[in-house]
Amino acid sequence: MGGVEFLKGHGTENDFVLLPDPDGVLDLTEARVRALCDRQRGLGADGVLRVVRPEVGPWFMDYRNADGSIAEMCGNGVRVFAHYLVDAGLVPEGEFVVGTRGGEKPVVVHPDGSVTVEMGPVRITGTSTTKTTGADFAGVAVDVGNPHLACVTDVHIATLDLTEQPHFDPAVFPNGVNLEFVNVLRDGVLRMRVHERGVGETRSCGTGTVAAVASWLHGEGRTTGQATVDVLGGRVAVEIGEGRSTLTGPAVLVARGELDQAWWDSL
Amino acid sequence: MGGVEFLKGHGTENDFVLLPDPDGVLDLTEARVRALCDRQRGLGADGVLRVVRPEVGPWFMDYRNADGSIAEMCGNGVRVFAHYLVDAGLVPEGEFVVGTRGGEKPVVVHPDGSVTVEMGPVRITGTSTTKTTGADFAGVAVDVGNPHLACVTDVHIATLDLTEQPHFDPAVFPNGVNLEFVNVLRDGVLRMRVHERGVGETRSCGTGTVAAVASWLHGEGRTTGQATVDVLGGRVAVEIGEGRSTLTGPAVLVARGELDQAWWDSL
Repeated sequence: MGGVEFLKGHGTENDFVLLPDPDGVLDLTEARVRALCDRQRGLGADGVLRVVRPEVGPWFMDYRNADGSIAEMCGNGVRVFAHYLVDAGLVPEGEFVVGTRGGEKPVVVHPDGSVTVEMGPVRITGTSTTKTTGADFAGVAVDVGNPHLACVTDVHIATLDLTEQPHFDPAVFPNGVNLEFVNVLRDGVLRMRVHERGVGETRSCGTGTVAAVASWLHGEGRTTGQATVDVLGGRVAVEIGEGRSTLTGPAVLVARGELDQAWWDSL
Repeated sequence: MGGVEFLKGHGTENDFVLLPDPDGVLDLTEARVRALCDRQRGLGADGVLRVVRPEVGPWFMDYRNADGSIAEMCGNGVRVFAHYLVDAGLVPEGEFVVGTRGGEKPVVVHPDGSVTVEMGPVRITGTSTTKTTGADFAGVAVDVGNPHLACVTDVHIATLDLTEQPHFDPAVFPNGVNLEFVNVLRDGVLRMRVHERGVGETRSCGTGTVAAVASWLHGEGRTTGQATVDVLGGRVAVEIGEGRSTLTGPAVLVARGELDQAWWDSL
């Protein structure tokens, strides 16, 4: 024992290994990140959140993708990160700020462990179409820091086959696009499936849920409002205001312990 | 904290959550097994090994599949189980017996943590062919308690596409068959890929490696002998004797800790 401390958790089934490392002494190589995230050889996760306390400023989320590369920010990860800080007694419940490579992110940790994260401005940039499962879907192009095409449709989204890359217009989305398919169940209650750029279908996509709500509001002739969105991995709530948006969703801690020292040293 | 104790480990990348429960007090429902093995919502594993100490007899491996169902035995799991018993100081290193629903299994835990397991008798029952990636492969039907068709071939196994079920003769294998594709690198050095019945390609299959060695020996006109077998998940060593066989392979412990009590109670 005496090994490296870890926790495992998830936000709408986007899952992470957390490595508390307040003093920044861990030698977290790419090989170690890959081994940690390997679902057979290691613990298994979509990414690693190293928990660092800088000399000045807020607790810092050092986020790594499962392939070992460094990423700026992760909306689901920041919820799990904030929940951990409160759960570990490092920060009091309520409103505080988390440092990320993408800037400081204001969060609110609620009594049930769910977390609200500021998602920034949302911009409708036009319209376009996508084609999948043999049908065309019209949607709204939405910029939430990354590009989305969010398609509200009457076709039940459970019937869609998203195993292949749906067709989209490369003239409108030269850098690719995240595609959302959205059913409106009633006012303010949506369900969504998402095909993430470069990844494929995923169980949740934070910016995608914001785009879905923006698209639904746009169709209603509104620019602000709120809705819940059911994704495959759970339920989130989105609020869109003037020049800002928030996402509230669950953050679950599953387990905590220590990595086997011989295993860590072998990496 | 104060939650349920667990460990995570793997044998040739067939991975398990271990639950030390010497007194058999854990309420391990199907739902909890499924949640533990869920790779996004839980810890993630191919199965759960509950570690129980009966009033009489050896330590007992209560093995559960990821879907929550009960299974008799798991060759890779019993290595990890035995390694854990020695690592935790519950059994001295060397030779001992592990209880399973499939009977008592003699094992030897070696100083490097690798484990030898008795695999029982191996029987050549005939010949047959399989077809995959547009080519026919001739092989030997081998019974290792379960049915195998092990095909030694000069075609480099890395070039095979095993994403689809390869064709086999249902008259020879009415209950389906595990298919091994085997390259002989030199005397006693094999590499293998395996398509497991009802599962698809896997990173390792204990009985499959025994069948592969039996098939190679048969082609050499021998009934006993030994070989190493490289599978996608690592390297094992197989020895086939008169009416018996053994498999020696790695068993790795990755992490240990406690499940979050609130999470466990929510299942």
